[in-house]
Amino acid sequence: MDVTKKYEIIRINGENINRVEDILINEYPFTLFIDDEEIITLLCTPKSLKELALGFLYSEGFIESLDQIEKIQIDEKNGRAYLYLKYRKSLNEKLYGKRTITSGCGKGTIFYNVIDSFKSKKIHKIIDLSKENVIQLSKEFNRKSELFLKTGGVHSCALCSKDKILYFEDDIGRHNALDKILGGAFLDNIDLSDKVVITSGRISSEMLIKTAKREIPAIISRSAPTSLAVDMARDLNILLIGFARGQKMNIYTNFPSLIF
Amino acid sequence: MDVTKKYEIIRINGENINRVEDILINEYPFTLFIDDEEIITLLCTPKSLKELALGFLYSEGFIESLDQIEKIQIDEKNGRAYLYLKYRKSLNEKLYGKRTITSGCGKGTIFYNVIDSFKSKKIHKIIDLSKENVIQLSKEFNRKSELFLKTGGVHSCALCSKDKILYFEDDIGRHNALDKILGGAFLDNIDLSDKVVITSGRISSEMLIKTAKREIPAIISRSAPTSLAVDMARDLNILLIGFARGQKMNIYTNFPSLIF
Repeated sequence: MDVTKKYEIIRINGENINRVEDILINEYPFTLFIDDEEIITLLCTPKSLKELALGFLYSEGFIESLDQIEKIQIDEKNGRAYLYLKYRKSLNEKLYGKRTITSGCGKGTIFYNVIDSFKSKKIHKIIDLSKENVIQLSKEFNRKSELFLKTGGVHSCALCSKDKILYFEDDIGRHNALDKILGGAFLDNIDLSDKVVITSGRISSEMLIKTAKREIPAIISRSAPTSLAVDMARDLNILLIGFARGQKMNIYTNFPSLIF
Repeated sequence: MDVTKKYEIIRINGENINRVEDILINEYPFTLFIDDEEIITLLCTPKSLKELALGFLYSEGFIESLDQIEKIQIDEKNGRAYLYLKYRKSLNEKLYGKRTITSGCGKGTIFYNVIDSFKSKKIHKIIDLSKENVIQLSKEFNRKSELFLKTGGVHSCALCSKDKILYFEDDIGRHNALDKILGGAFLDNIDLSDKVVITSGRISSEMLIKTAKREIPAIISRSAPTSLAVDMARDLNILLIGFARGQKMNIYTNFPSLIF
C-alpha cells in the first residue's frame, strides 16, 4: 500500500498560478479485531501495519506477551487486522469495558456512519473567497497565534468571515481548538454557511469532518492536508487550502472564483 | 486558570549549560458530564472551557441547539463541566452507545487508572546518556525523516540504544508512530529498560504514558513537552528532553550524568 498519493492541485505563489501534481500523505482507516470482535479503527499511514496493530493493542493492555498470540492476519487491501489470542486476561476485559476514548487519531464504528451521513451534506453555496482574502486572513491569523510563539506547544484555530477573524482559540489539541470556536459560534447562534475555518495544524479527516458537520464551506491551513481529507472535501464541495504561507497557497479543490 | 506553567529546566546550547526558567503549555484534564453522567475527559488548554464543552458535545452530536440546554456549570478548579439538558434525542443515545473512540487528545476513566498505576512503575535504572549521544541520535533521526520532508504531513518516532536507532517509523499520528516502534520491539522481544524514544512531535501526557507503561527510561523530542508530561516524567524518573535541535536541547528532568 502506498504511503503517499498524488493529487492534481492548483499552486499559487504571488501572481503565479499553476496546475501541478502534489504528493499527499495517505490517511488509511485500519480496523483491529480480536477474536473477530471489532476493537477500534485507527487512522494511520499504511506501513508497518502488523507493528501498529500489535503496538497499539500492547500499549492499551489488550495483549501482554507474544505467547498469548495464536495468529495475526493483516488484510492490507481492506484495512483490517485480525488477531486471535490463546487466552484473554480478565484485566484486559475490564480495561476494554471501561475505555471511552483512546489516543491518537482514529474513530470506531461511528467513523463510517459519519462519512455516510455526508452524502446529504454537500456544500451548495460556494463561498466567494479571493486570493487576497486568504492572504489577509492568514496574516491576521499568524499575528494572533501568540501562545504558540511563547511555548511552541499549541495549535490555533479561527472562524472567519471573508475578511476578518470572528473567533480565535488556542489549544494543545487542534481538535479542541476547533471545538472551542464552534462552541463560541454555537453560543452566539452564528450562521456558518459563509464562514471559513483556519487551523495551524494539519487538516486530517477528523478536522474536515468537524467542519463538514457544521456545513462550513472552507478550511485553510498553513500545514498539509491528508489524502482522506482532500477526498472528502472534493466529495462535499468544501474549499480546502493548504500550505497558506505569505503569498503562497495550495488549492486542493477547484474553485475558479477564488483564483481569478 | 493559567494556560502556561513555569518550570526550572536545564538549557544546553553547545558548551553553554544553564539552569533557566521555561514556560510550558498547561495540559489540563477536563471531564464533561451530561445529566451527571460522565461522558469523556478531554486533555486541553484551560481557556474557553464553556466553548470547548459545548463545541465538543455539539460536534459529536450530543447536543443540537441552545434550546436543549437547561444549564451549564463549569468547575474550573476541578476540571469539570456539568451540562443539564431539557431533553435528550434518541439519536444521541445511539451515537453515544456506539462510540468507541473520539477525536483529539483525551482519555476517559481509564486515564486516571493509568496515572494511578504509575506509582509502581518508577524508573530505577537511570539511563547513562551523554549530551553527545542526544546530539548524535537526533541528527540520525532527522536524516531518516524523509517522508515528512516529502509531504509535510507525518510524524516520526524511533526507538534507540544509546548510540544508534534500532526502530524507526513514520505515521500521520504521532501515537501510531510510537505504537509501531513499540510493536516492532514487542515482536523482537527487545529489552526496553536501556532504550530511548525519539519523537518528532510534541510530548503530551499520552506519549509519556505510552513510554512509561513500557518502562522506557528516556524520551526526546525536537518539539515541546506539555506540563502534564513533565510532571509525570519527574514523578517517574523518566529523562525528558525537548527542543533537541543541533547543539541545543532543554532538559526537563534532572540527570546530572547527562550534562557533564
